[in-house]
Amino acid sequence: MTTKTIKDAVHDHIRVDEFALDLLDTPEMQRLRHVRQLGTAYLVYPSANHTRFEHSLGVYHLAVQALDNLGVGGTERDEVRAAALLHDVGHTPFSHNTEDVIEEHVGKRHDEVEDILEGNVARVLEERGLSPERVAALIRGEGRYGQLVSGELDVDRMDYLVRDAHHTGVPYGTIDNRRLVLELDFVGDELVLGEGNVQTAEALLLARALMHPTVYSHHVARISKAMLKRATERLIEGGVDAGRVRRMDDHELVVALRNSDTTGEMGKRLAERRLYKRAVWKPRDEVPSGSLDAEPRELEREIADAAGVEPHEVIVDVSTPPRMAETEASVVVDGEKRRLEGVSPLVKTLMEVHEEGWKFGVYAPERSLDDVEKASERVV
Amino acid sequence: MTTKTIKDAVHDHIRVDEFALDLLDTPEMQRLRHVRQLGTAYLVYPSANHTRFEHSLGVYHLAVQALDNLGVGGTERDEVRAAALLHDVGHTPFSHNTEDVIEEHVGKRHDEVEDILEGNVARVLEERGLSPERVAALIRGEGRYGQLVSGELDVDRMDYLVRDAHHTGVPYGTIDNRRLVLELDFVGDELVLGEGNVQTAEALLLARALMHPTVYSHHVARISKAMLKRATERLIEGGVDAGRVRRMDDHELVVALRNSDTTGEMGKRLAERRLYKRAVWKPRDEVPSGSLDAEPRELEREIADAAGVEPHEVIVDVSTPPRMAETEASVVVDGEKRRLEGVSPLVKTLMEVHEEGWKFGVYAPERSLDDVEKASERVV
Amino acid sequence: MTTKTIKDAVHDHIRVDEFALDLLDTPEMQRLRHVRQLGTAYLVYPSANHTRFEHSLGVYHLAVQALDNLGVGGTERDEVRAAALLHDVGHTPFSHNTEDVIEEHVGKRHDEVEDILEGNVARVLEERGLSPERVAALIRGEGRYGQLVSGELDVDRMDYLVRDAHHTGVPYGTIDNRRLVLELDFVGDELVLGEGNVQTAEALLLARALMHPTVYSHHVARISKAMLKRATERLIEGGVDAGRVRRMDDHELVVALRNSDTTGEMGKRLAERRLYKRAVWKPRDEVPSGSLDAEPRELEREIADAAGVEPHEVIVDVSTPPRMAETEASVVVDGEKRRLEGVSPLVKTLMEVHEEGWKFGVYAPERSLDDVEKASERVV
Amino acid sequence: MTTKTIKDAVHDHIRVDEFALDLLDTPEMQRLRHVRQLGTAYLVYPSANHTRFEHSLGVYHLAVQALDNLGVGGTERDEVRAAALLHDVGHTPFSHNTEDVIEEHVGKRHDEVEDILEGNVARVLEERGLSPERVAALIRGEGRYGQLVSGELDVDRMDYLVRDAHHTGVPYGTIDNRRLVLELDFVGDELVLGEGNVQTAEALLLARALMHPTVYSHHVARISKAMLKRATERLIEGGVDAGRVRRMDDHELVVALRNSDTTGEMGKRLAERRLYKRAVWKPRDEVPSGSLDAEPRELEREIADAAGVEPHEVIVDVSTPPRMAETEASVVVDGEKRRLEGVSPLVKTLMEVHEEGWKFGVYAPERSLDDVEKASERVV
Repeated sequence: MTTKTIKDAVHDHIRVDEFALDLLDTPEMQRLRHVRQLGTAYLVYPSANHTRFEHSLGVYHLAVQALDNLGVGGTERDEVRAAALLHDVGHTPFSHNTEDVIEEHVGKRHDEVEDILEGNVARVLEERGLSPERVAALIRGEGRYGQLVSGELDVDRMDYLVRDAHHTGVPYGTIDNRRLVLELDFVGDELVLGEGNVQTAEALLLARALMHPTVYSHHVARISKAMLKRATERLIEGGVDAGRVRRMDDHELVVALRNSDTTGEMGKRLAERRLYKRAVWKPRDEVPSGSLDAEPRELEREIADAAGVEPHEVIVDVSTPPRMAETEASVVVDGEKRRLEGVSPLVKTLMEVHEEGWKFGVYAPERSLDDVEKASERVV
Repeated sequence: MTTKTIKDAVHDHIRVDEFALDLLDTPEMQRLRHVRQLGTAYLVYPSANHTRFEHSLGVYHLAVQALDNLGVGGTERDEVRAAALLHDVGHTPFSHNTEDVIEEHVGKRHDEVEDILEGNVARVLEERGLSPERVAALIRGEGRYGQLVSGELDVDRMDYLVRDAHHTGVPYGTIDNRRLVLELDFVGDELVLGEGNVQTAEALLLARALMHPTVYSHHVARISKAMLKRATERLIEGGVDAGRVRRMDDHELVVALRNSDTTGEMGKRLAERRLYKRAVWKPRDEVPSGSLDAEPRELEREIADAAGVEPHEVIVDVSTPPRMAETEASVVVDGEKRRLEGVSPLVKTLMEVHEEGWKFGVYAPERSLDDVEKASERVV
Repeated sequence: MTTKTIKDAVHDHIRVDEFALDLLDTPEMQRLRHVRQLGTAYLVYPSANHTRFEHSLGVYHLAVQALDNLGVGGTERDEVRAAALLHDVGHTPFSHNTEDVIEEHVGKRHDEVEDILEGNVARVLEERGLSPERVAALIRGEGRYGQLVSGELDVDRMDYLVRDAHHTGVPYGTIDNRRLVLELDFVGDELVLGEGNVQTAEALLLARALMHPTVYSHHVARISKAMLKRATERLIEGGVDAGRVRRMDDHELVVALRNSDTTGEMGKRLAERRLYKRAVWKPRDEVPSGSLDAEPRELEREIADAAGVEPHEVIVDVSTPPRMAETEASVVVDGEKRRLEGVSPLVKTLMEVHEEGWKFGVYAPERSLDDVEKASERVV
Repeated sequence: MTTKTIKDAVHDHIRVDEFALDLLDTPEMQRLRHVRQLGTAYLVYPSANHTRFEHSLGVYHLAVQALDNLGVGGTERDEVRAAALLHDVGHTPFSHNTEDVIEEHVGKRHDEVEDILEGNVARVLEERGLSPERVAALIRGEGRYGQLVSGELDVDRMDYLVRDAHHTGVPYGTIDNRRLVLELDFVGDELVLGEGNVQTAEALLLARALMHPTVYSHHVARISKAMLKRATERLIEGGVDAGRVRRMDDHELVVALRNSDTTGEMGKRLAERRLYKRAVWKPRDEVPSGSLDAEPRELEREIADAAGVEPHEVIVDVSTPPRMAETEASVVVDGEKRRLEGVSPLVKTLMEVHEEGWKFGVYAPERSLDDVEKASERVV
């Protein structure tokens, strides 16, 4: 059987067998070479141009290490390998940046990959004697080994933290991922970290907690994401089929936005990094719950009216802080399985910091910033 | 005066003042965020998605260190800083991959930046009291400090070797660039490495010599480049203005190739990594000089005829090995300026290895590979 | 003026001028080449053999960057440079491992460097027109720039965290030290981190909080340190002058311990890594305050009596958790200077975790472990 | 069966089973924690304090990877693992620095480990059912798998180049060691690199070729080594048993040199880095063959006489350039086994450069440098 090695900037040589190569060679997987891992974060960190393709390879590599260590073979092993490699195959262009808005119109999230599993990928899986449905279930985190692919201690997060650190230059994500992989174990049907790893789990959580404000939710990343999201929304409303947008890669979405009459201006702004600025930026608990629960587009119209500007010149960003799944991870302490939050006083504080650090924002072009700020004060 | 730091994956924090920021904020520089540094090399090294933008920042950073070290201030310093930052502003999409073919139709190379210096960039330079012409001259390597920007020991190569190593994962480019920058000196008007640096210069040359076969001229990189180049050529011949193609970024060229009738198939092949294979791959000195000197398109037609396939199914790659400028670098030895090739027996051998390692190639789709191989044997 | 560069595994090239070289060339500084930075931690992390000498160079390097950034010149600059380079010159062999016990007998700590400033070092300082007393004051953290050398935000900790990470292989210490240095500022006479750096300060604190249990207070590091400390104590009690021990390097102390009748067995144990084990290891708050406050040697004798073993076969380790000075750092928030603990909810929790994680230990050779454990239960 | 992981600065987590742990726990292996890998090179590169112990672990780690890849199991696997871990157990203090002089008096080299295989190490091997003699043979490079431990393509050099790069900060040693290990194969009974690896082998050779002048044979490393060697020689001549010196660790040799009447001055010089300087430093082919072949101690006496200084104030260093074993490595080219020198024109040139770069030296204290230089001109 042929094996090949692929050189990766993070894990060095990644060995892939013929089955993995066949999956990689599908157009569905090749498309991920053109989907940036961190969406518009490259507008803050110029080196952050890494893609879902290399990340998928990295997740595959760590999954194989974990399977070796847990002694999993046979069909189960092949299923998990496939799920690890394919877990992001359903990603929309610019990754999470456009996910919500496309999902709203299409009704599926990136990890609900059934329909994609009908084409080339399904064919490769079936040739190997695997069930696409079972692989899809693993990607959704179902079953014993689904936890390894999508759970509190999945190899997904073990790859992306280190990869994002490598390509942004921000050191905070540099976790000890080899230790994490080696210490994974099962207690009954639950994937846990073995004895002596409370600090290992805390370190993983801390890495995420530090990467969030510095990279993932840096205000420039949030503004550019909001701009991209709103433009994509308008593109779909302007008649481009949401299902088609979902299958675009970054190249196609960028050009579609630039070429459309309704989104051309926004596309040009993103191309030239002439981003909106923050008219409002404050803790969510200082915002009336009415405004948090309102339909953002409605709020934008109200603020635009009050400010005397065009509606598309106001973006209201009420996104909620992402879940920190790691807090629910389990660790063996003195021979017993314990939730991390039960044994680590850090967890609760980190959750609070994470929640409090997340801001409510209203963005507008620089020239109308003052007007929008004043209007927001009245409306919000 | 405001200074800002930009986080870079290679040089950590890069400090930029308001002038550099103004240059960075031009649409011309922002465009480089969407031009991959190594063109299609990401098809061999999945992590190689870095761009001309981050490279330009890196070159700026090293230029500032060199200027500090050489004690250069005033207008001269500003000119060199600008030239370092702007040196790639004229790059065509996918960097060197499409350069030749666009140049043929437009008649300028990426370092002949005069026309670009007429727009936003020129305005920023003039506001600072600088002459765009003088900055352009530095980019062309003219004058005392032009050597720092484009010469045998320029900071351009000191950045890209390390950056390419970081993003591909191939360690060979990891040169001691801080030492190189610190040891730069002038003897008369020539930029040289100071006493005791023969090995420093050799190490730079060796890094290039190892990166070439492993990365820059890896056969998959050369095939995909040849495919992209031929498709771009056909796009221009099909009526898309060469001047317009030259200003495209990667997104726009990729989509234009995919959407055009004449190049759609090639665009799709590149998207899905269904690359041509090598029908012929041999040392240039085993190829009759008639074939080396022939017009490649003509040769392709002949081979296609002989093989009974469509002309676009054959690509003849007669490109010549790139110049290794470092061999002409000067180093101070026992108080005297000496050419590196005069003091290092390695240089001559490395040049020979470099020349001999460079192959002549004929590429074709897998299904017609045998036919094209046989036809090539007859024709070439 | 001559400058030289010294290659460092952490900061790459470190430039030193003639004054710094003269200080480095004193026997007092050269001695630090033979004093391990982390004492006996190499018994847990085999690569952790780095020394106070390279650390001193690193601290010097960061101090120069900070001085550049703060625009400090003249005599003040020279004094701070000297203090940074010399700050550890008074360290006892094996760094902090033997500090307390030697201090008890000699009555001085490593940062009280006056007497050392009388010899070669003082001469170099005076030749430069500097006052040894003023340099010593800076090392003690006195005055405006003393904070840079020894304070909540000193360059000492910015070097050692990264250096310890590099040489142990534990990634947690990989802080963004370039950012820390660039963001240092003065508000009045207090050294602070400028606006927007709450997370920068938190990250520094978190790095320390993670390095502590993993490296600095790993139980094997604590046991071997306790063994070394007790042996050194006995060496001094056996007649070797404490002042002489204080000036030893690691080589001399190791050999002295191995060759002495009273400490030979312990010296051999350390050489062969036959370490004591934990008979007791529990949170300090589960230990009666009487035992925490008791004279450890007294407690050891009692436990040894109860266990029927020799007194030197029991080591009671009541050391207290080291101060986390970073918690008292100040950061500018919305234009005002604020204590980190006032703006970061993490600080309080981290302090608690740090306190609670610190254990009370009783160690004994493997063969008498059970007896000592039982005896400890009765006595403690 | 227990496995443990040991954290290494180069290879991250190294997994060791009980057998490997038992070998590591012998006093013979623990001693290597106190033997510096690069001898006195830390006097040039302050961070180069790594030891034979961590190197031995690294070699073990790479050997296990190679064995996995080659599919070697059973007793053979255990023997190779043991040989990899133990291959340096016979090293003299300061590694190669004192090897020759001790060998001269004792008559054995560090890889002739039989006598050491009689004690604790032999016992552990025999408990595992292994023959110490067979393990010793592997360490000497005998047999099929001996090539993996000590041959042209052994894992020893794959570890030390990268490790020396990591700890010195010199990037040249950063080879692609994972690729090297994965590409090892057997053709008949010879260990070779598989098809497509001429450049992989060249890169290994180039790494050595660059590390040599920069690190291993840097003139300060050679001078300090020569001083240490001469002092050790005098120590033995002064009556300290050569067999005892051979078993010392660095601590013991350093203290022995400092405390002896005959070597105290040299010991102090090394401690304070007051090194001899170069009175003569020229290519070996400019030195009369009579001088190259003369007994160095004889030559020293002659020069000292002519210069009117004490004999111990002159050190003649006629050491020969170390063999570059990699040049004899074999690589598969077009399906056939070929010597690297037959397929790579670089090899011959690199050998010449290596030979020519190696200098003949005469060293003396600074104060008598002129006199010794003049005397050398007459005598040599």
